Amino acid sequence: MTRTILPRSSRFPILPWRKFSSLTGPRSAARAISTATRDPRTKMRTWELDEQHLSKIRVNPTRLIDELHYTCQWGTGQRWGKADSETGMSRLALSDADKLARDWFVDTTKSLGCKISVDAMGNTFAIRPGREDGPPTCAGSHLDTQPSGGRYDGILGILAGVEMLKVLSENRVETAFPVGVVNWTNEEGARFPISMVSSGVWAGEIPLDRAHGLKEVGGGSHTMKSELERIGYLGSLPASYEAMPLAAHFELHIEQGPILETEKQKIGIVKGVQAYRWYTVEVDGQEAHTGTTPFNSRADALLAAARMICTSHTAAADHGALASTGILTLSPGSVNTIPGKVTFSLDIRAPTDHILDKLEEHLKSDFDFIVSTESTHGLGLAVSWQTDSVSPAIHFHDDCISTVRASANAILGDDKLSREMVSGAGHDSVYASRRCPTSMIFVPSRNGISHNPKEYTSPEDCAIGADVLLQSVLRYDRLRFARKV
Amino acid sequence: MTRTILPRSSRFPILPWRKFSSLTGPRSAARAISTATRDPRTKMRTWELDEQHLSKIRVNPTRLIDELHYTCQWGTGQRWGKADSETGMSRLALSDADKLARDWFVDTTKSLGCKISVDAMGNTFAIRPGREDGPPTCAGSHLDTQPSGGRYDGILGILAGVEMLKVLSENRVETAFPVGVVNWTNEEGARFPISMVSSGVWAGEIPLDRAHGLKEVGGGSHTMKSELERIGYLGSLPASYEAMPLAAHFELHIEQGPILETEKQKIGIVKGVQAYRWYTVEVDGQEAHTGTTPFNSRADALLAAARMICTSHTAAADHGALASTGILTLSPGSVNTIPGKVTFSLDIRAPTDHILDKLEEHLKSDFDFIVSTESTHGLGLAVSWQTDSVSPAIHFHDDCISTVRASANAILGDDKLSREMVSGAGHDSVYASRRCPTSMIFVPSRNGISHNPKEYTSPEDCAIGADVLLQSVLRYDRLRFARKV
Ligand SMILES: [Zn+2]
Ligand SMILES: [Zn+2]
Repeated sequence: MTRTILPRSSRFPILPWRKFSSLTGPRSAARAISTATRDPRTKMRTWELDEQHLSKIRVNPTRLIDELHYTCQWGTGQRWGKADSETGMSRLALSDADKLARDWFVDTTKSLGCKISVDAMGNTFAIRPGREDGPPTCAGSHLDTQPSGGRYDGILGILAGVEMLKVLSENRVETAFPVGVVNWTNEEGARFPISMVSSGVWAGEIPLDRAHGLKEVGGGSHTMKSELERIGYLGSLPASYEAMPLAAHFELHIEQGPILETEKQKIGIVKGVQAYRWYTVEVDGQEAHTGTTPFNSRADALLAAARMICTSHTAAADHGALASTGILTLSPGSVNTIPGKVTFSLDIRAPTDHILDKLEEHLKSDFDFIVSTESTHGLGLAVSWQTDSVSPAIHFHDDCISTVRASANAILGDDKLSREMVSGAGHDSVYASRRCPTSMIFVPSRNGISHNPKEYTSPEDCAIGADVLLQSVLRYDRLRFARKV
Repeated sequence: MTRTILPRSSRFPILPWRKFSSLTGPRSAARAISTATRDPRTKMRTWELDEQHLSKIRVNPTRLIDELHYTCQWGTGQRWGKADSETGMSRLALSDADKLARDWFVDTTKSLGCKISVDAMGNTFAIRPGREDGPPTCAGSHLDTQPSGGRYDGILGILAGVEMLKVLSENRVETAFPVGVVNWTNEEGARFPISMVSSGVWAGEIPLDRAHGLKEVGGGSHTMKSELERIGYLGSLPASYEAMPLAAHFELHIEQGPILETEKQKIGIVKGVQAYRWYTVEVDGQEAHTGTTPFNSRADALLAAARMICTSHTAAADHGALASTGILTLSPGSVNTIPGKVTFSLDIRAPTDHILDKLEEHLKSDFDFIVSTESTHGLGLAVSWQTDSVSPAIHFHDDCISTVRASANAILGDDKLSREMVSGAGHDSVYASRRCPTSMIFVPSRNGISHNPKEYTSPEDCAIGADVLLQSVLRYDRLRFARKV
């Protein structure tokens, strides 16, 4: 379960490329690149690496975590512990703090030899050239946070991408094709109220005008466009997968759930994203006095709703799905008045759309049964459903999933330390997957907590995740090379 | 179930006292009063009435209901039907509308020969002298309403009392002791937030200063005392059962529940008031993402609360009690966040305190079980109880209950048309019962609805209730006379 993290000096007693520099790698791959074009300063070429060598390429764990906390100076949030790094984050998209974090991202990646492209949604692509032209294989995530968020959600994915660029740069690695890092704008939807809005525009799923016109929550007058302009990130590049195609998208992210921790595993190989549906369920009953109305004369909307909530859990468990209620309001809201009306949210999730179809059907029938059995005395109870959101299941690309799996096995040694998962939450990878092969890499979240200042992933687990991300990008580059040949 | 209401002229083809005037009534009772003191204008003396004669004394149903709707010109509320009388009432205590209704009460009862006493809480006693001095046997209720109330709650009790005075006056009935009508101030607690506060002060259970200092709800600066002064009802009489003792208190009231209607009965003989207890129950769980947190890693405060609400109903039914939840709040209140905290009100009621003791014990154990079985993964759920209000069961006086029963049987002919009940709601009779023999008379509420503009009791049912009230007061007067002798 635990991996001992050696200090940099002992983890890399001999830098791998010092050994590899005399190797030619797999012969067929090597043959495809003319020796005439080789840069003598290059120490390692991805297409020349065999499995044994590739599996030894690792990030610098101390540098990764130090840099992560360094960037958390911009938008530092609520303190929960005594150490410098024991605070949350409050870095809303396109705020001044976000601008400073973006500037750091641009400056750092430029200094590592990347070309920077900013699109009309502020999505920022740092691309490192490869031996050949073509769309980049990218690591991507987001630098914005919830108003009361943590230091890992989104941030870890970007920082691991930057660490990847550092490893490639300092070790003079040449990739067959460009590789890079993308910072997607306003993933959280916390300031401008559509989650993943900018990868959505890039994917052609959300109109640019609608995204530009989004007003900040809380009654402010700023829009996404005005704030992009203000902080200098309204780019000239169209926000589009056509203007900026990606060869593949890999996202390292904290799990935001307890499964890896509970199962004492280190890496989640993310095969896709759960389907989910959001409903508003309204139960109408009859207000009545709690003291003067016997049970058989009631139409208690809250009792019916309580039974529905209990039933939704039982039924979801039976279907291998999830059901949750996060909002419940009732009226009139008096201790001695039986509620006449209850409205509650229902969030159901499952790995496939088919399971959700079945569960929805099951619950509609159960809820009808509940209102018919509660209904007495002609007062009647009624239930109605409103569908607020339907998100189909997302299936990531087999090539990317295999690449992540191979990298996890290479890093962890033991395939019991990783598991295949579906993501329960949405990510920019959902939209990316519509336009390029995609997969994600999950690392453990302490107590499954996220969107909270106490969100935490250990430095060791961050480094393991960054290693898998680094190797996934390199393996995918090698795969592209092999296929091209 | 139905009683044919004859027009006044045919119901009273020969007014009873025209027949009774030559009777002496029960001989023992008659002997006790010196014939020398008899007023020749008196047509009837209660102590001379035998059962056969007493049972024929009735109110004027048309006058009763016409006068009731007449007084609803002060504080008319929301319209729900087309007829003039098809509106609710909004007559908050000590408002201008309440002052006008009080003035009508004073003027009308004065003109019927009553002496008016107003105490320091504005409680208004209209007392009609009897043959002998002594504390009055009173009908009492309240003229104030909920802000969105109806035309019957409280109002019917006062109007039936005034109709009683009219019957006594026009028929020149002499009672052995004084009889009267009390209008208690701010019974609803809707404007000044303690229900039954003025009968409470009268009974010595609520300090005068506390009641006087009550501020109107909604942030106004008026107090009960300043408003009593403003409308001219801050009386000089101390608000006290010692300064204004009552011999007995009878209250005609709408049931505010569906039992009489459901059972097709006309009169509830109210033996007492249910015990009730109010609690605030807090369930603490763990906020978590609905999509990333499997069931076995949740501490879902709302699911636990829903199970508690379901259990409270089942357990209460098993104990012959009631349980209701009228308020529920949760946090943080987001569709995709499992609630970390839920607070809900719990109102339990039963005919005896002992049943509530048992039910409370049962529920505490059940709720502990629910949090222990929901609790997984070390995240834990916790439940805590706060007791907000304890109201012990009230048992009315056997003499008054018997008097009401005898009157109901006399009016209805058939004892299947009445039932013994306990009141589920509080009334001024609760405090009255601490200081004098008391009982109540319930009449049907259509659909069990009250505290609502659509509150309705048919004119026929109002008249039956008023008949029972009238006869109860006369029977009790006769009983006092008989016992004195
Ligand atoms: Zn994220
Ligand atoms: Zn009332």
